[in-house]
Amino acid sequence: MPEVPDKKVGFFVNMKGKVKVKAQTPKGFRDFSPEEARLRESVIATLKEVFSSYGFAPLETPAIEYQETLLGKYGEEADKLIYLFQDRGGRDIGLRYDLTVPLARVVAQYQNELPIPFKRYQIAPVWRADKPQAGRFREFWQADVDTVGSPSLLADAEVIACIADCAKKLGFNRFQIKVNDRNILASLSPAEIRALDKLEKIGKEGVIKELVKLGKKKAEAEKLFAKIKKTKAPESIKKLFGYLESFGVSKDFLKFDPLLARGLDYYTGTIFELLLPDYPSGSVGGGGRYDDLIGQFSGRDLPAVGFSFGIDRVVEALKQTGVLAEETNITAPDILITVMDEKLADYSIKLSKALRDAGFLAEVYPDEQTKLDKQLKYADKRGIPWVAIAGTEEVKGNQVTLKNMQTGKQKRIKLQELTKTLESAE
Amino acid sequence: MPEVPDKKVGFFVNMKGKVKVKAQTPKGFRDFSPEEARLRESVIATLKEVFSSYGFAPLETPAIEYQETLLGKYGEEADKLIYLFQDRGGRDIGLRYDLTVPLARVVAQYQNELPIPFKRYQIAPVWRADKPQAGRFREFWQADVDTVGSPSLLADAEVIACIADCAKKLGFNRFQIKVNDRNILASLSPAEIRALDKLEKIGKEGVIKELVKLGKKKAEAEKLFAKIKKTKAPESIKKLFGYLESFGVSKDFLKFDPLLARGLDYYTGTIFELLLPDYPSGSVGGGGRYDDLIGQFSGRDLPAVGFSFGIDRVVEALKQTGVLAEETNITAPDILITVMDEKLADYSIKLSKALRDAGFLAEVYPDEQTKLDKQLKYADKRGIPWVAIAGTEEVKGNQVTLKNMQTGKQKRIKLQELTKTLESAE
Repeated sequence: MPEVPDKKVGFFVNMKGKVKVKAQTPKGFRDFSPEEARLRESVIATLKEVFSSYGFAPLETPAIEYQETLLGKYGEEADKLIYLFQDRGGRDIGLRYDLTVPLARVVAQYQNELPIPFKRYQIAPVWRADKPQAGRFREFWQADVDTVGSPSLLADAEVIACIADCAKKLGFNRFQIKVNDRNILASLSPAEIRALDKLEKIGKEGVIKELVKLGKKKAEAEKLFAKIKKTKAPESIKKLFGYLESFGVSKDFLKFDPLLARGLDYYTGTIFELLLPDYPSGSVGGGGRYDDLIGQFSGRDLPAVGFSFGIDRVVEALKQTGVLAEETNITAPDILITVMDEKLADYSIKLSKALRDAGFLAEVYPDEQTKLDKQLKYADKRGIPWVAIAGTEEVKGNQVTLKNMQTGKQKRIKLQELTKTLESAE
Repeated sequence: MPEVPDKKVGFFVNMKGKVKVKAQTPKGFRDFSPEEARLRESVIATLKEVFSSYGFAPLETPAIEYQETLLGKYGEEADKLIYLFQDRGGRDIGLRYDLTVPLARVVAQYQNELPIPFKRYQIAPVWRADKPQAGRFREFWQADVDTVGSPSLLADAEVIACIADCAKKLGFNRFQIKVNDRNILASLSPAEIRALDKLEKIGKEGVIKELVKLGKKKAEAEKLFAKIKKTKAPESIKKLFGYLESFGVSKDFLKFDPLLARGLDYYTGTIFELLLPDYPSGSVGGGGRYDDLIGQFSGRDLPAVGFSFGIDRVVEALKQTGVLAEETNITAPDILITVMDEKLADYSIKLSKALRDAGFLAEVYPDEQTKLDKQLKYADKRGIPWVAIAGTEEVKGNQVTLKNMQTGKQKRIKLQELTKTLESAE
């Protein structure tokens, strides 16, 4: 261990005089317990399944990009939140801020090899040096689905249909997709669009104030707001909704909202957000068309449209709205086999293997020096439904004592009856 | 876009005078194409399944840790390869170097809440500022499985049995697990152990040279090497192999190797590596017991044992040894439905939905302005096996022309025959 100053935050000296490191996550970062991680895995598996059913295929990009790849794409405010640093070779690099800009970089880089239209999904963490606050973290996962190379509203409709299917498959029966066309906001500057994007958070008055701060007169700002608000759905939206009906997305799930802004600079056409009426903390994802982003890199311009789920928000919404599919966060095996002492360990180990071979999730208690009582407590804490106790008597008779951890009842049975008993109990 | 110096590496001005960003990944970093990403997904799914069958549950930790968490755990050489930087708040942070130290931090941090023994897996990227070279990258994925809280060799055996099962389930019928006990190397310093760890790469003479560099006399180094080499398996290894036999891991797959060293400082007991005779580029993973690592953090000491797969190496080995499970890297949907023009788009869209509802992976070509020829070329490039052509005639007759992209044959059929035809062709 290198020399460490013992006064530094994060280090301390314990009672025995040993230097210890304080176990802590950096501010804004989180660990996910097995139960939470299992739930996240299950959400991701569902999204992958739906994405694939529409012909989207996975793509992986690195967490680290060159700074020039990341900067100047999202807007001034966002640029300040990108994690930037130098590597040991003095290269200016940074952590990805979203999955859209890396996709644009990939498409520009490999455009002669990729099939165009290029349809990909990517599910991965992104990093933003935001002020940590309730529900906002510096590392969070996004699940993105994008079609690159088609300027058609058909591509927009396909992405929206896909996310509507995702919402249904995740178990959200009530959801709404708000849609707008960025062209409706063409008279606004990027900063004004970002102000409008805060509408849900700060209300109309707040938006007006921000517009005034940006140089508009108050009356002018109010007039502008009112004008945008009463804009009728343009042809593009009507056509999009028509396609969506063919995709099986009922109009009940769709809402044209001329005030929908989306904060990022790179959007150029259709924009949309997925909202859950039973989860009022904001959208669980958003997206839109960005026809000029790829052209900022080397190579030809290519139009693109996509959507990004916030995995954290989806998981939060699943918990809050109670539509959680059964057993999506179970992390326990089906059965624990106890180990009474070293001599009996082989019997327990062989039993665990036989049960795994029969398709059960089975674990043997991994320490032969632990008292039975503690082994049962472990099973209880992990929520393991069955425990097979294999003591001297049981081993002699080729038996186990099978304990139902929920009822507390137990019964000695022959080994050959075990799998049948477990199956019939399921 | 902020002001950018046009001479900076990564930026350039194109023929139209527009500033463009060169699309490139930083040195040592990679993108994974859909085919590669699909293969990686399939490897990860297999590992998760086997890990879970042994009762290991997922845990997620952040990519970023405090520097004091990361430093001083791996050894001097490794410490130099950790990506360290400051965040905008001046905090000294870094990217995780492996998944073992974050696990130790988690266990120390939440030890009163976690069930002990704590059995977890984690599959995630790690970062090392290594010199990029063939097969060595700065970002790579590890799949770790660990049991914390048991000092017993039963826990070591369970981890090894689990990885043997992983090897089998991945399709590797030939594999070998080399095992040693770090206590055999107790007379060596950490630096000397790291020298021995290079044996596969630099050979015996290379190791002797390194030992001499570290201060040993040549004769002394040779004697030490010979002495270690002929060490007989100690009781710990015999007991471990006995447990492994009960776990169903035949002795044919196991080899005691007193020269096995493992480079990381934190190992304290059993150490092991998974090797594939058909993949001579090195082990596809390694692990061992590390009973003193968790105690470096706040809280009580806890013994632990675990293993880490290198996902990249597993994938490389699958490719090179040709044991790839069928279709693990297919990224194409089952069928593409063409779109001939805007008026006919709804017919194609509805057909794609009906096919998805019937369980097929079906996509509609996402642009109604593209010529049929180009749509067919797209299907070909992506390897989509079937194309349903829906032109004016077909739409009129409630039909499609179904084209087999492999044979080139096509046939006009009624819509209601489509799913049956596709199913019978599978």
